[in-house]
Amino acid sequence: MVPDLISSAGPARVSVPQDVPMKRDVITISDLTNAEIEEIFALADEFLEQMATAERPHQVRGRRADAARYLMMSLFYEPSTRTRFSFEAAMVRLGGSVLGTVDPVTSSAAKGESLADTVRVMENYADLIVMRHNYEGAARAAAEYVGIPVINGGDGGHEHPTQTLCDLYTLRRENQSLKDLNVLVVGDLKHGRTVHSLVYGLARFNANIIPMPAKGFELPEQVTRRLQEEYHCRPYSKDEVFGSAEDMPQIDVVYVAPGSSLHMSVVPRRQMGDEFADEGSADATARRARPPLTFDVCYVTRLQGERLAPGQTLGRDYPVIDRKFLRGKRYTETRVLHPLPRVDELGYDLDNDPRGIYFKQAAYGVPVRMALMAKILGIVPFRAAEPLAPRKVYANAQGLACGNARCITNHPSESRHLTPKFWLVKSARMLARCVYCETDTVVACWGRLPDRRISTDFASIETLAPGDVVLFASEDAARRAGFRPDERPRRA
Amino acid sequence: MVPDLISSAGPARVSVPQDVPMKRDVITISDLTNAEIEEIFALADEFLEQMATAERPHQVRGRRADAARYLMMSLFYEPSTRTRFSFEAAMVRLGGSVLGTVDPVTSSAAKGESLADTVRVMENYADLIVMRHNYEGAARAAAEYVGIPVINGGDGGHEHPTQTLCDLYTLRRENQSLKDLNVLVVGDLKHGRTVHSLVYGLARFNANIIPMPAKGFELPEQVTRRLQEEYHCRPYSKDEVFGSAEDMPQIDVVYVAPGSSLHMSVVPRRQMGDEFADEGSADATARRARPPLTFDVCYVTRLQGERLAPGQTLGRDYPVIDRKFLRGKRYTETRVLHPLPRVDELGYDLDNDPRGIYFKQAAYGVPVRMALMAKILGIVPFRAAEPLAPRKVYANAQGLACGNARCITNHPSESRHLTPKFWLVKSARMLARCVYCETDTVVACWGRLPDRRISTDFASIETLAPGDVVLFASEDAARRAGFRPDERPRRA
Amino acid sequence: MVPDLISSAGPARVSVPQDVPMKRDVITISDLTNAEIEEIFALADEFLEQMATAERPHQVRGRRADAARYLMMSLFYEPSTRTRFSFEAAMVRLGGSVLGTVDPVTSSAAKGESLADTVRVMENYADLIVMRHNYEGAARAAAEYVGIPVINGGDGGHEHPTQTLCDLYTLRRENQSLKDLNVLVVGDLKHGRTVHSLVYGLARFNANIIPMPAKGFELPEQVTRRLQEEYHCRPYSKDEVFGSAEDMPQIDVVYVAPGSSLHMSVVPRRQMGDEFADEGSADATARRARPPLTFDVCYVTRLQGERLAPGQTLGRDYPVIDRKFLRGKRYTETRVLHPLPRVDELGYDLDNDPRGIYFKQAAYGVPVRMALMAKILGIVPFRAAEPLAPRKVYANAQGLACGNARCITNHPSESRHLTPKFWLVKSARMLARCVYCETDTVVACWGRLPDRRISTDFASIETLAPGDVVLFASEDAARRAGFRPDERPRRA
Repeated sequence: MVPDLISSAGPARVSVPQDVPMKRDVITISDLTNAEIEEIFALADEFLEQMATAERPHQVRGRRADAARYLMMSLFYEPSTRTRFSFEAAMVRLGGSVLGTVDPVTSSAAKGESLADTVRVMENYADLIVMRHNYEGAARAAAEYVGIPVINGGDGGHEHPTQTLCDLYTLRRENQSLKDLNVLVVGDLKHGRTVHSLVYGLARFNANIIPMPAKGFELPEQVTRRLQEEYHCRPYSKDEVFGSAEDMPQIDVVYVAPGSSLHMSVVPRRQMGDEFADEGSADATARRARPPLTFDVCYVTRLQGERLAPGQTLGRDYPVIDRKFLRGKRYTETRVLHPLPRVDELGYDLDNDPRGIYFKQAAYGVPVRMALMAKILGIVPFRAAEPLAPRKVYANAQGLACGNARCITNHPSESRHLTPKFWLVKSARMLARCVYCETDTVVACWGRLPDRRISTDFASIETLAPGDVVLFASEDAARRAGFRPDERPRRA
Repeated sequence: MVPDLISSAGPARVSVPQDVPMKRDVITISDLTNAEIEEIFALADEFLEQMATAERPHQVRGRRADAARYLMMSLFYEPSTRTRFSFEAAMVRLGGSVLGTVDPVTSSAAKGESLADTVRVMENYADLIVMRHNYEGAARAAAEYVGIPVINGGDGGHEHPTQTLCDLYTLRRENQSLKDLNVLVVGDLKHGRTVHSLVYGLARFNANIIPMPAKGFELPEQVTRRLQEEYHCRPYSKDEVFGSAEDMPQIDVVYVAPGSSLHMSVVPRRQMGDEFADEGSADATARRARPPLTFDVCYVTRLQGERLAPGQTLGRDYPVIDRKFLRGKRYTETRVLHPLPRVDELGYDLDNDPRGIYFKQAAYGVPVRMALMAKILGIVPFRAAEPLAPRKVYANAQGLACGNARCITNHPSESRHLTPKFWLVKSARMLARCVYCETDTVVACWGRLPDRRISTDFASIETLAPGDVVLFASEDAARRAGFRPDERPRRA
Repeated sequence: MVPDLISSAGPARVSVPQDVPMKRDVITISDLTNAEIEEIFALADEFLEQMATAERPHQVRGRRADAARYLMMSLFYEPSTRTRFSFEAAMVRLGGSVLGTVDPVTSSAAKGESLADTVRVMENYADLIVMRHNYEGAARAAAEYVGIPVINGGDGGHEHPTQTLCDLYTLRRENQSLKDLNVLVVGDLKHGRTVHSLVYGLARFNANIIPMPAKGFELPEQVTRRLQEEYHCRPYSKDEVFGSAEDMPQIDVVYVAPGSSLHMSVVPRRQMGDEFADEGSADATARRARPPLTFDVCYVTRLQGERLAPGQTLGRDYPVIDRKFLRGKRYTETRVLHPLPRVDELGYDLDNDPRGIYFKQAAYGVPVRMALMAKILGIVPFRAAEPLAPRKVYANAQGLACGNARCITNHPSESRHLTPKFWLVKSARMLARCVYCETDTVVACWGRLPDRRISTDFASIETLAPGDVVLFASEDAARRAGFRPDERPRRA
């Protein structure tokens, strides 16, 4: 029933351990395994079919939804139209009801209430919280505070996993499979939370990623690093892939997903190896003779003006995708997506062009969110429930804080409740990844409890219980916190 | 079951052709035939009876509503209490659900989204859109963008057809018939969209209209012209109707509906003829001897302060309707209506006066809107579905634009999507009526395609396909657009 | 089934006579008898049990709720999170639906509409109004305007009866009985409407009240007077109760409920008598030997910053309740409640302390409000319906006005509709209590109609019909209103 598009590959599932075993939160796209996403999409297919064949109004009912009127709470600290209303429409179509705050700023937050207090009260009112917040990691924090499922409707510039589900579902419906798709990702790749969730999702399902950022709005270093180190994408330069073709848009790099080819002989060969193959100039002529790379998808995003730093301005070269841009042969079959709303970056002349499918993409938001909630609430249980891969979490009250100023752990009212917590990530240097906003911070050394010794021997950390370890950004910081260098002789 | 109050007369139905044959929008009161309005009122009677006899809570169900939970989207770009909540209550009483935007300014519009994009996304979430907007013609434009029904909850100063349905229903419940009623219409007749819908509705159902505007807030010229030319009302001066009676309010003219009499012998005689009868001064004495004209209805409206032009001020003579005003014999049986909210123009001393029925009028809003939505959604289908009278529509991108600055076609974000479109209306001069806001603009000449000749022979336009005609406000404008005068000799 | 905690004692039920016999409003906690509160709590127990044992989602249905989808209107003129959402969740859990205004300021109130007009329209849309307003007495006024039940969700600094129901229910669940509980009430006791409802409720259910106000935020004189004169509480000084114990917080007085003891022999003895017993210094030693008084409950409230007079500032000594404060033996078993949201007055270190039960208190909001609405709407009728104790109401258009500037009778738009109305209350002087905001004003004299004589003989008022009596704050005011002193000789 489900096309065989979804590889079971992908990174280990990343999830904060929960006190309530049955509770499932969706904060990042990594909170769902590939198999679970498959199930969600298959259920969305069923809902979509019912909606298409039923008379209007097409209330689609899950198996137990009729007897079970679930209550969803919309908790939006930032404006939203399509995310909020598609969730609310989905819940009503499932037979449930909705409570909503249009603007929490006018309610408890105006009386100085913390997020922690707000959601701990809300959990008594609803069965599910859908939440948007301007701080990164806010949804993960909320999920820790409460015993009911939390779905992230966007947290600052971090992630927007249900948008990614809709995007992937759209690509799958239009292309049968995500494997081997060449996806041009255009616009503000720096602030766009939809983009960050998307590129990880594309990599997991073996689509190739071709970033085409506005100048100054490139993918953050952490995202490109994770794509390579954790999602096993291989970066190729534009020239390697396209040669010196003059019709190419302004791109620098192509990320090839681990299970993908680029429809070009040169690339699969490289991709199979463990190292970058040395590519002599003699191959250039050969490359030009190969069939040209086509773009299967062009994913356009608007400038996230509300996330610009003060004084930051938008250059004039923000890419505009319209019929003129898409006139080359590479774009004959390109499907143009956009999470909407658009401003000027997406031509209105595509509204009636069969390649522009962004309104169809918006329409898929309802069945996909119906399916997600039906699964999360257990109306239609996950069949392929996998045990969570346990990860060591370092609660780090005495040591380093998250370096991201917009992380929820640095929010004035939340720092009372939230101890910074990290996973360790091995890269060129040892990194501490914030459990909430997933920003990486370099770890210079660590201290051992209870004897308060400083160490730089990261290999030995793993032998200790996380509660005996404190991470530091510098040895100075460790000393200021009362830790002393280890006086035992170092191993040679 | 329905009193025989509603004549089947009335103007030809005016409706924009729709791509979706089954879809019914209600943008102006003209979108419903008299027979359809009869059906709506009969169904509202049924709902009202159920609501009166059922125990509280009185959920009234349409025949299929139980199995079919319709979803209504409230899309209000301007504040509203009674329109929005009566629609929402009506949908809930029908067994459906509601999604609502209290303030679209805080959601997508804040990110710069156009109305076109917003509603094209919304149509995936709901089965019906109820919409209020500050631009005239916005609801018609929205109805063109989407495939689900749109009901106009007020578009600028243009129309508010469901308020008119409630007004007419109230008059019908209170008076058994609208025919021959003398309706005093008081207050801001210039900006009041409820008034514009109402006077057309009154004329269609053969009530006489007696405007009593605040000074400077008279009915727009276009409305009085349409009343006469399209709704076949006959204007009489105050003196002709009332003689020199000293107890009369400050009125100038009385519009007599085509099928009505004024309860005075002089008027029916005139009304039967095709020309205004010459009235000699000898009749004056006779008129005074006739039974005095009484006011069956006094329809009061507040000043639409939010639509005043900058610098425009309200004179001190804004009419106030209270018990003092209503003390004469002409007002013994007068029913006082007001669409609410009131400010100072309606005396609180009428709240407990049996003539003040404005709260009853507000109460009828729920059953009337239940009936309207049940019909539009097909829960209780229209029996008397009439084919639309086809009208030629002139899409006019190269020629004239709508002269109304508050027309949705002149809205900055919508002009990208909307080509100005017009119907031709024959009056003293040839007029182009905007399909959206219904403002008339004088057509000076027209150009023929593809040979780009200018012509002033309006009779011959009808022989051409609309696509071959471009309308112009002046010959200069036509020349600037690259059209040339027809060099063939004109017909003598 | 219900613990025998609730005495049937308590003040006479205070209620404005209603035109609609079956209609029940809940404006103050006095609108419910003790027996009715017992029934509400017993039904809440049932709902709570269903919610705990049902699978999620736990829609709890009243006996007839399934067939009867009630419509609740949320009419909030001030921000609210927990009151509004717990009501809305409760109505949905009962099987009903909700219409809501987030911010009436943006709707009709923006067009200048009065509360009277707004609610008289709203009553056509819903079966029940839940209302919050910044003016005191607004909910009572609204209840007079409409024929459907009104529940007060907070009216200025006056009352918040459903919060009190939740508070009492929480205490009852946690302590089995309210009788003899010693309740420390902490914080802003001046403006906190939750506190005013609460202390009356505590007195009725025989809990002792120990105020611990922030300096300058003491209980209003009227509240302490009513506690003594109407709720029969006995005030004791701190020293009388605690002796000179040094571990005591900054309290001055202890109010002992009529049916309670303080677990100390000295107090019951006093309490039995009609007069304060003279307490010689010889008893001091004896008192110290008695078992120390413990605090069963600590009810903390935030500063109601939004109700501060201009220029009023918060002193630095606002009491903070945290683990440090609760370290003494008197607090070993203390349950800490807070109506939330908190600011700084409640330590976050209590979130994981078993004594902090404020989130449980918030959770009880849903079953308690479900039970209240099920009773008020007649889904589960009151068994113990008592006839209202009739009270004479003095409508007093010619005489004194309510002295409270924030009373709804002094609201600019409402004074048109509302005649000041009073009950007479005998205290040291004769007082007129506003029917709406319950503020007492001293009555200096009264005038008799129709002969317009001034009298100070308050005993004889009761022999007259209220319509023949006009109350005055001074004889001067009476003279200005055209009343003359009674010239008959006074009785010696």
